[in-house]
This record gives sequence, structure tokens and C-alpha cells, in this order.
Amino acid sequence: MVGGGRDAFIGAVHRIAARIDDQYELVAGAFSSNPEKALASANDLGVPRAYTSFAEMAAKEARRKDGIDVVAIVTPNHMHAPVAMQFLKRGIHVICDKPLTATLAEAKKLAKAAEASGVVFALTHNYTGYPMIRQAKAMIAAGELGELRLVNVEYVQDWLTEPVDNKQADWRTDPARSGAGGSTGDIGTHAFNLASFVTGLTLDTLAADLTAFVPGRRVDDNGHVLMRYKGGAKGMLWCSQVAPGNENGLRLRVYGTKGGLEWAQEDPNYLWFTPFGQPKRLITRGGAGSGPEAARVSRIPPGHPEGYLEGFANIYTEAARAIRAAKAGTPVPEGTTFPGLKEGLEGVAFVDACVRSSARNGAWVSLNL
Amino acid sequence: MVGGGRDAFIGAVHRIAARIDDQYELVAGAFSSNPEKALASANDLGVPRAYTSFAEMAAKEARRKDGIDVVAIVTPNHMHAPVAMQFLKRGIHVICDKPLTATLAEAKKLAKAAEASGVVFALTHNYTGYPMIRQAKAMIAAGELGELRLVNVEYVQDWLTEPVDNKQADWRTDPARSGAGGSTGDIGTHAFNLASFVTGLTLDTLAADLTAFVPGRRVDDNGHVLMRYKGGAKGMLWCSQVAPGNENGLRLRVYGTKGGLEWAQEDPNYLWFTPFGQPKRLITRGGAGSGPEAARVSRIPPGHPEGYLEGFANIYTEAARAIRAAKAGTPVPEGTTFPGLKEGLEGVAFVDACVRSSARNGAWVSLNL
Amino acid sequence: MVGGGRDAFIGAVHRIAARIDDQYELVAGAFSSNPEKALASANDLGVPRAYTSFAEMAAKEARRKDGIDVVAIVTPNHMHAPVAMQFLKRGIHVICDKPLTATLAEAKKLAKAAEASGVVFALTHNYTGYPMIRQAKAMIAAGELGELRLVNVEYVQDWLTEPVDNKQADWRTDPARSGAGGSTGDIGTHAFNLASFVTGLTLDTLAADLTAFVPGRRVDDNGHVLMRYKGGAKGMLWCSQVAPGNENGLRLRVYGTKGGLEWAQEDPNYLWFTPFGQPKRLITRGGAGSGPEAARVSRIPPGHPEGYLEGFANIYTEAARAIRAAKAGTPVPEGTTFPGLKEGLEGVAFVDACVRSSARNGAWVSLNL
Amino acid sequence: MVGGGRDAFIGAVHRIAARIDDQYELVAGAFSSNPEKALASANDLGVPRAYTSFAEMAAKEARRKDGIDVVAIVTPNHMHAPVAMQFLKRGIHVICDKPLTATLAEAKKLAKAAEASGVVFALTHNYTGYPMIRQAKAMIAAGELGELRLVNVEYVQDWLTEPVDNKQADWRTDPARSGAGGSTGDIGTHAFNLASFVTGLTLDTLAADLTAFVPGRRVDDNGHVLMRYKGGAKGMLWCSQVAPGNENGLRLRVYGTKGGLEWAQEDPNYLWFTPFGQPKRLITRGGAGSGPEAARVSRIPPGHPEGYLEGFANIYTEAARAIRAAKAGTPVPEGTTFPGLKEGLEGVAFVDACVRSSARNGAWVSLNL
Repeated sequence: MVGGGRDAFIGAVHRIAARIDDQYELVAGAFSSNPEKALASANDLGVPRAYTSFAEMAAKEARRKDGIDVVAIVTPNHMHAPVAMQFLKRGIHVICDKPLTATLAEAKKLAKAAEASGVVFALTHNYTGYPMIRQAKAMIAAGELGELRLVNVEYVQDWLTEPVDNKQADWRTDPARSGAGGSTGDIGTHAFNLASFVTGLTLDTLAADLTAFVPGRRVDDNGHVLMRYKGGAKGMLWCSQVAPGNENGLRLRVYGTKGGLEWAQEDPNYLWFTPFGQPKRLITRGGAGSGPEAARVSRIPPGHPEGYLEGFANIYTEAARAIRAAKAGTPVPEGTTFPGLKEGLEGVAFVDACVRSSARNGAWVSLNL
Repeated sequence: MVGGGRDAFIGAVHRIAARIDDQYELVAGAFSSNPEKALASANDLGVPRAYTSFAEMAAKEARRKDGIDVVAIVTPNHMHAPVAMQFLKRGIHVICDKPLTATLAEAKKLAKAAEASGVVFALTHNYTGYPMIRQAKAMIAAGELGELRLVNVEYVQDWLTEPVDNKQADWRTDPARSGAGGSTGDIGTHAFNLASFVTGLTLDTLAADLTAFVPGRRVDDNGHVLMRYKGGAKGMLWCSQVAPGNENGLRLRVYGTKGGLEWAQEDPNYLWFTPFGQPKRLITRGGAGSGPEAARVSRIPPGHPEGYLEGFANIYTEAARAIRAAKAGTPVPEGTTFPGLKEGLEGVAFVDACVRSSARNGAWVSLNL
Repeated sequence: MVGGGRDAFIGAVHRIAARIDDQYELVAGAFSSNPEKALASANDLGVPRAYTSFAEMAAKEARRKDGIDVVAIVTPNHMHAPVAMQFLKRGIHVICDKPLTATLAEAKKLAKAAEASGVVFALTHNYTGYPMIRQAKAMIAAGELGELRLVNVEYVQDWLTEPVDNKQADWRTDPARSGAGGSTGDIGTHAFNLASFVTGLTLDTLAADLTAFVPGRRVDDNGHVLMRYKGGAKGMLWCSQVAPGNENGLRLRVYGTKGGLEWAQEDPNYLWFTPFGQPKRLITRGGAGSGPEAARVSRIPPGHPEGYLEGFANIYTEAARAIRAAKAGTPVPEGTTFPGLKEGLEGVAFVDACVRSSARNGAWVSLNL
Repeated sequence: MVGGGRDAFIGAVHRIAARIDDQYELVAGAFSSNPEKALASANDLGVPRAYTSFAEMAAKEARRKDGIDVVAIVTPNHMHAPVAMQFLKRGIHVICDKPLTATLAEAKKLAKAAEASGVVFALTHNYTGYPMIRQAKAMIAAGELGELRLVNVEYVQDWLTEPVDNKQADWRTDPARSGAGGSTGDIGTHAFNLASFVTGLTLDTLAADLTAFVPGRRVDDNGHVLMRYKGGAKGMLWCSQVAPGNENGLRLRVYGTKGGLEWAQEDPNYLWFTPFGQPKRLITRGGAGSGPEAARVSRIPPGHPEGYLEGFANIYTEAARAIRAAKAGTPVPEGTTFPGLKEGLEGVAFVDACVRSSARNGAWVSLNL
């Protein structure tokens, strides 16, 4: 692991996610750019091989016989690319937090390098790991909604309603570290990715109105985005970090000619499905109406709620399947699904497009892919 | 009453609303443009003075000593103005269904004439009659949300998901009778009005992307609208008649520097309030936390749900207060609140602006007031 | 109307309920046992024929050619029987608030007299008027739940959590006026009636544990009741007035060999139906899955919530159908459904049985019918 | 681990729960009474030391220098005691699934032996591990509800609505393996334990009406229980496995003189709190209003749902704290909380009392502790 030392949030999440299905062992880490903190964090975690530099870690691990198979990158955004490059060029697989990079130029370069290297590259758009999201995707792919018309996705929080001064807020509101997008980069990319994943639609153009409501904030803390997908579906995307009463309100609604689906991340075991002209149905994880795509990423019976960590673990476990196949030289098992470079590129391009559109007063723009 | 004969929907709603608080008696009507239907409807309803023409009704009622005080207009949109003109020029008060008119030009003309006449003019944007909407408005006016930043309003239905061929759908999808807006006129105006009513904000500009998804439909059945309010607040408005699983999903969320409010029309007795940094609170109609503004338009204790008809009745009863005052030459009682010409004009201007913006590919436009 | 003067709660409810469908006109009243209040109340309400005594009212109205057809009795419980007797013996139809009487002896006497008189006698167990309750009853009657096994009904409030000193609380906690049951009589009877109405089951025996939690309270403010129905179904009934956070929480759940139904009074437009082995379905008033039994007592489309007053009005309107038929000497229209003497007797017998069982430490007892 | 081989349900849950916080390593197992299955399961799991007999495992592990510190027992109920005895008598700590044993006599014997041995004994009444349950317990202990009056707890499922023939159902409906209680033992004990844990109340007496609804079933599949707690609070407990539409519906409601709390296992991150006379508040895991007792058993921020596995893991991690302390000879860290022998005994005594009461037609009985 690179990053994720003391005081970090997402590093601990990655570590639990890696443990849940017993597919990973954490044996080495460069947990902080601060050497003391890096070592102390390794000690806290009982990690045997502690490094104070990710470059050193990449080099040394690559030389060990029992060196790591895969690195988890959980640094602030601007460090994703430099870290990933060190490992992938040595053939070490990569699991990287989202967004892929802080800038689109970096993203393109990294994607190119990663593809050339042939490593497995997983990007933790973890919300695609939820079983009911897999269920929704499968239902849409099977045509249960008919031709899609409308996508409404929002990711609404309130933790930046007032100026905040802590480690988590600092880098997320610093364009040098987070990229040009604030809420759009941190959570808008998740929303955009989730909508794309579930619907299978490809964005054509978007029009965005971004705002930094909190005085002095240097990146957007709210984004209003209209979307037009190829094929004629249309969408709205709202991301906000300044809506009091919303903790982690990622919600997706999709409507087609034959039906509608509705899902909310804070109650992830439920999927609402309305075939047009019939009563609304509540499909539960593992319950009646829930199919094999959900079951393969689920561990316990219906009514026993799985949560954020299990969804995150599914990304790790899917990546493990791909990594094992890569090591064995066998095909990736059928059904294995996790976000990677393509989704990462699209996410950074989405932020870039939002920023460009907003700068042009909401003009419709395409992704610069 | 003019309109509202057999097969009509909203006429019956107006009649019940008028009865609930015992402030009106229905004594005359021109219930249909079809003379037979007009008379049959009057007979069904036991209304003593049946007319086959609204012009005749206006003329004759104005000449009677016991002529009507007020007319309720529940015709398709394009007939609001012609009917209203006949009555108001004779000093008969008007309660008119929304939107005010089918076109902005008509709306301006009607508003001018109505103002000149001095009659009471109530427009049934009935959702402003819900007690918890009054509560929300009062809380925002009292500063409980701080400075407003975000308005998210949606009015989502599914009844036009497929081509529909009935009286209700026919005129609503015919631009000659409904006006240039489809979903924007029929329900978008409600959403826009509700947001304005609750927040007290004035729209500066909007950008709209309207769509007619159903093949052959001549007016929009879905509208995506971005809004910028004077003072810096921003909003999203979504209206749709093609989202399967949504019956009458009018939902409003408002966020400010100090808190947030959330309300849904289908569960109208609940108002969710989050003071930033505190737990979310459920304010119920008549329950703890619900104040005098809600109480004055409420009839029964908390836990005994009031619904759509009671909210609608509140508009009628508020109008009755104004009409009694007008007849008595006394001031309108304090607190009396109902939508009228100003709201009507704004609504038609909203539709007009949406249509103009959408025609210009979502350019930001102002209301032509 | 007898009772329902200034400060009363349920009288106003009855008056609105009577107006909603325009089937009644309020022309006479003895609104209070206090003569001044009786007259002032009549004046407030614009009721032309004001009486200061219900006996006088019964006598005089019976002699008038345009005398009342029906009396609404909205007094405290102990006055139901004396008032009803005066009217029914003169052939005036009766709509009476629940419970039927304060004591079982009175109830039996009243029922006998009323039956002998041949008048229409409606008891306002108003919750049976909700459309989705009609829907539930119809589904169970049609066998959609299979053979019934379990009934879980609760009616939970919090308004008597602390000692209360007002008109509403006074008589309800005075056994001389309310009867021997407190919460059991005031709300337990509603719960019991609702369960019986929906399921069609007949109680065999019950075991009750009643409590007066608030010091000094003379009647129960909480009741725990186990039930055994004829045919083998079993139930639990909970009524409480001391459960903080519950306003008017009447909830019914019924389960059979083939499915389950769940309904809550505070959200009355929703009925949850699970056919065993299939996803839970949300049936809405007027929406898909909602049938003719609900439609005939519903006024507006799905998504436009109806509430407590509309449900109450349905009882009035059903009674009007029966009264019109009685006056015309024609059969009561098919489908007309309202609670009457049988339900009234059962309700008072239920309270009586609860009190007897609880006095015998929860022994199983039958209703003394 | 003993038990938990191929086809088992709860064994996998224990293994994940043990991994989540990285406090355990699974190194030995007797995963089945069937030797082949035992070895195959060990192989599946990559567990190095596979045994075909728990007695052999206990003996051999006790002799190893690197022998196990603790055994997890996840067998059917009747095997809990025999297995536990083998390990605890050798000083190996025990984590045992609930209920403690199949019979009360066994439970008493085991409790005595375990206490004498001095080992740490954790019983996985896992629902006490949910953060919001810890929060509820802390609030009640702090007096936020005042003096407790009412406890309403239910645990409602539907998976045994029809006769079921699989491994999970087989032993749970066989009194020789599950004990005399069916639903009471399998889920009623959880409900009873949860209510006791949160409220801190001690049961005085109960009255039960148990039923086996499904023809041929040898143990109850539904239990209705009235409860009287020492100090005057009263309760209702409902457990059912035959209520279609309920997956794992464990719900707890507690009311006192000053307020009420409501929680549902299927939405475990929410706790509803109503201070009497104030609006209902939604306390979320980690959100405003959530205190240190919840925070110490929580891993991620509010809005990121934790679920069943995390709650289960909390029991494991609490037990790990006690086991580390036992090994080190230091006091158990303050705040460490997990169910053990006392709760186990009470649970089995609860089932025993329900069965006794029901056999005596619902007579009030005490626990035979």
C-alpha cells in the first residue's frame, strides 16, 4: 500500500476491503510521504516491510522473490499517476483510488503506460461493487426497462457546508492536489461512473454550472450538470458537499420505455423496480427477484444488510480474480467486473468537461477522450 | 363554475375543496362547451342555475341580486383568459386553475385587466396550501436555514410514458390548448411556483433542455432546467411525465448556510429539517416543531393525515377570506396567503423561458416579465 | 348533531366528513350539555335550529315535516346510548362515534332497541373507510393471502405520556364517562375492529395485560393483548397512549400461507403486499394493483394523497347510501359497507374482555356477546 | 473453528467477522462431523491444521506450543456444550454461536464449567454489536428516556412459511438438535437478548403462546410473548418464521417517561429518538447525536453504511480485547462489551420459560435461572 497512514480515511477502508474475502495479505507499505509517519503507521498495522518512499518500495519489491503482486494506491489525487507509474513499469499490478489522476493529461499518459505494461489496473469506483447495482445493470442489459430515456443521479453531502480545516478537507479543496474539480472530482466522478456502469450508456455532451459556495474555496463545492447520452437518453447529475442533512447521498434513478429503477447508496440492499403499469417492487439483495449477478458478489442472506465495506471488498475480490488469472496466464473468469483505466479516463474527462462547460457559462461540451 | 363537467378531473377537486371548510355554495355553472353535457353535469351535481355558455353565465349572474360572488374556472388552459375576462370585467371574483393562460401575451393582458378590475384573483397552485409547505416557508423566512444556496425541485410522473388517448391527455399534449409547454406547463409551473413560494427567492435566469420522448408528441414530456436566483442561490428543476414508478412526485429540497429542508408531496404531513451539525428532525403537521403558519391551515391533530384535498381547500378558504374582506371593504385578514396574478404571470413566463432556452440549446435566459 | 360544540375535536371531523361528498346538510344541533355553549356553537356554525337538550331536539325534529333524517352523535362515550335511544325510537337514523357505549350492558340494550327500530345505525370506526383498507379486505377475501395465520395490529400514541388536563383527556380517562377501558376503549377498539374488518376473522379468545402507567390514572393507558381467532389464526394487539414518538400509529399486518399485507394509518395511501416467494409490492390508492373496492371510495388519482378526513367521509357517504335506500324503500346498493351495531357490540365486548382478562392476570377469556 | 464446513451458513459469517479487524487468524478446524467434508472444507479455506474430530482438535491444539488461543463453535445447538467443554477445560477461550445450548440443564452445566475454567467465553448475539444498538444502550443508561415503561421487540422472518427441506432448516426444526424452541430458540433468543442488552432491564415473568403453524413441524415457528420486567416495565416479543414479506425483521422499540427509541436491524445505521414533546430525530451511525459508544465500534463515516458483518465483527473484536487481556494478565480494556455465559443462560432459560408457559396455556412464569 502507498498512502493510507495515520489520520487517513480511505486507506483503512482499502485494508478492510482487502481482508473481507481473504484474497490479499498486506506485507509492505509506504504509508506516508512523512518518513516518521510512514514507519509508525507500518508498525501500527503490523506490516513487515515498511518503506519511506514509494519509489524505493517499487524498486525493492520488484527485486524480491516474494515481492508484492499488487499495490494499492490511496494517496491524494495528484500522486496517483507518479506512484502508479513506478509500480506498473515493473509489472506490479495496481489498485488505485479514484479519480484516476488530478489532470486529464496525466490520465491519458498513465492509461497509455498502464495498457502498454499489461498489468491489471483496478480503480476503486467502489459503488459499482454493490450487489443491487450489479442487479440493476443486469436488468437494464436484459431490456427490462426498454429503451432508456432518463438518468437522474446525485451525490449529495454536507461536510463542506462551512470552511473545514483538516487533512481530508485540505487536499480535496486544493486544486494542485485534487485537480480542477472539487465536488465534481471527489464525488461527481462516482456519480457519473455509477450512471454509466448501470445504464451502459455513453455520454455525448454535457452542460455544467459549477459553484464554490463557501467563501474562499478554490474548487467547486456544488455542481449542476445536464447530460445528453448517445442514442437520445438525457440526464441530470447533481453533486454537492454543501447540502445540510445529506451524509453520503448517492442516488440513481433510471427510466426507460418499459420501466424504472431507483437505488440509494445509504440503503444499498434495496432496489426499487417498477415495470410500467405495474406496482412498484422492492427487490432486496438475495431476495426474490434478485439474480445471479447480485448473488456472485454477495455473502449473506437477504435481510442481513451488507454495506459499504462489502461493496468495496467486491472490487478487491474481482481484481484478485483478474490478478490470479494474469499470474496463471489464464483467462479472467467470466463475469469478473471492475472499473479500470477506461472508467478512470472517462471520470477525469468528465471533470475536465464540467470545468470547461462551466467556464463557458454552461455551454454543451464533449469529453476530450 | 366554468368547466368541470362529466369526465373532467380537476373540476371535482375544486368542488370538494370548496366544500371542505363550508365557505362556498355552488349555485351556477357552465360545465362544458358542449351544451348537452353542460346541462347534464349541472343536473348530476344538483346545481340550480345551469348555463350552456360562460359568457351568458357571466352576463346573467352579474345582473342577479343573488348572483355569484366568485367563479371557479377549471377549463383547459387556453380558455382561462377568455372566461376570466368575462367575469372580472363584471366585478365577479375569480378562482382560476393553473397555469394562468396558455400564452405569455394572454397572461399579461389578463393580469392587467384583472388588476384594473380590482377583483380577487386566486390561482390554484394548490401545493402552496399544504401546512408543511407553509411551515417550510415560515422557517426559511425566519432564517432557520441561513442564507439560501441550493434549491432542488422535481415533479415527476409517469402517466404519459406511452401515447395516451383520453380527455385529460388530449388537451394537455395539444399546444393550441395547453400552451407551448407540455410537462413544463402542466407540472413544471407547480414545481417552479412551489420553490419560489417556499424560498422567497426570485429567479434571475434559467437554462432548459426540454424533450418530447414519446414519438409524435407535440409538446415536451420531460424538462431539465438549471436555475440561478437573484442573490446567488442556484437550483435544479426536473419535470417529467415519462418516469415509470412516479405517480405525482413533487419533491422540494432547500439548503442554506445553516440547514436544510426536505418535503415530498406524496407524504405531505412530514417536513425534514436538519440544522447543520445536528440530527435530522421530522416535523409533522401539528406536531412538535410545527408552528402557527401550519396550524392556521390545518384541521386535525398530528398523526391524522391531511391530504391533497385539504391542501387545495386551503387555497379556497384563503381566497374566501379575501373575498369576504373585499365585499365588506375591510382589510384582508393578516396571514391570508394564496397565489394570484403575480404567481400566474411568473408561471407562464417560466414556461415561455424554458421553451426559448431549449430552442437555443439551453442558453441562459431571463423571464420576460 | 349532538355534541361537538366549541373545544370538541371529533365533532368538527364529523362535520367535514359529512360535507366532503355533499350528501348531508347540517340543519340542527344540540352541541353541548351547557346551554350557552350549545347556542354559541350553533351560531358559530351557522346552524339554523339550535337546541339546548338532545331530548328536546329529538322530539321536535321528529315532529317537523322537514325534520332531520339522521343524527350524528359525537358526545363522550357514556352519552352515546341515551342520545341514540331518543332518536332511533323516533325513526331517525343514527351515525354514532365509537365505541358504541361505555358499558357492555348498555351496548346490548342499545343494539336491541336499534335493531327493533329498523333505523340505519352507522358507527364511525372510520379507519375502515380508507381505500387501501378496502383493498386489503378484498384481497384477503379473494384468497390472495391463502389461509390466514397471523394478525399483528397496534395503535400507538403518546399524548397521555404525562398527566394531561384538558377536555379531551378528562373524559377519556374518567371511567364513568369513557367506560372501564382507557386506551383499550379509545383506540384498542379501533385496532380490534380494523383487524376484524380486514381479515374477516372472528375472535375466539383473548388474554390481556392492561396497565395504567401514569400515576393516578384511573383507566389503562397501555394494553398488551394476545388473540386467538376461530379457525386457528393468532394475533397480537398493542394499544398505547404513552409511547413517545408515536402520534397516531395504527398499523396492521396480516400473514397467511400465501402472502402478507402491511398497512399504516399515517401513510394510508400505501399497501404493501408480498406474495410468498416474490418481491414485496407497493400498491397505491388508485395505482396498479388497486382494485374496484378501493376505487369506489376514492376521489382523486394515485399520487394525490387522500387522508383521514376522506376516509371518515367514506363512512358518511356509505351511510348516506343506506339512508337513501331506507327512505326510498329500496335495497342498499351493492358494496355499501360501514360499521354498525354488530361492530359496536363487538368493540365494547372486546374492552370488557380485556378488562376481565387483565383482572384475572391475563387468563384467556371469550367475548360476552 | 468447529463446524462451519461446506454448505453451512453461519461459519462463513464467523470467518469474515474474524477477519474484518485483523484480530484473528484461522489456523485449525474440525469443520464437519463428516470426516471427508471436514478435510475438504479445510482445504477450501486453506486452513493448515485440519481435524476430523473436535475432541482430537482440542487435545492436540492444547499440546502445541503454537496451539490456538480460541475456538469458534458454529455447530448446531446441541453440539455447543460438548464441543465447548473439550476446549475450555484445556484453557482454550471460546466464541460460541447462540443459543448457548439446546437445553437448560446443559446450559447450567456448561456455564458452571466455563466459569470455573476462567476462559473468555463470548456468545455471538451479534446484534448487540451494531453501533446504533450501543448508542441506544448508552442513551438509556444516561437516562435520556427517563424511567422505562415499554419494550416492544420483534424478530420476524418468512423462510419457514412452507415446509423446507435443507440443511439449515433441518436441524433448526429438529428438537433433538435445536432444543425445544423453534423460532423462540433461533431468533426469539436474539430478540430477548437485544431488548435486555439495550434496556438493562431484568425480566420478571413472561406469558407465551407458541404455535407450529406448518403441518408436521415439531417446534414452534411463531411465538407471541408478553413480558413483565422487574421495576414495572412491560413488553411484547414476537418471533416468527412464517410471516411472508419479512426477511430478517428484528425491530426494537423502547419507551420511557421522557422519550422513545426505535431501531430496525435491516436499516441498522439509523436510530430514531423522540424526546417527549420534541420532533423525532434521526441519529445516524457516526452522525450528529451519535456518541463515543457507537464510535468505538464503527469504522467508517456516516452515510457509508455498515452492516451485519461489521456488527458481527464487533463481537469478535471485543472478544479479542478480552482474550489479549487474559493472555497478558491485564484488565479488560474499559468499555469492552460482548455477550457471554450470563446472556447465554438467560437465553436458554427464556426459551425454556416460553415452552413451559405455552404448555400451561400462557400462564405467567419466571425464568428458571
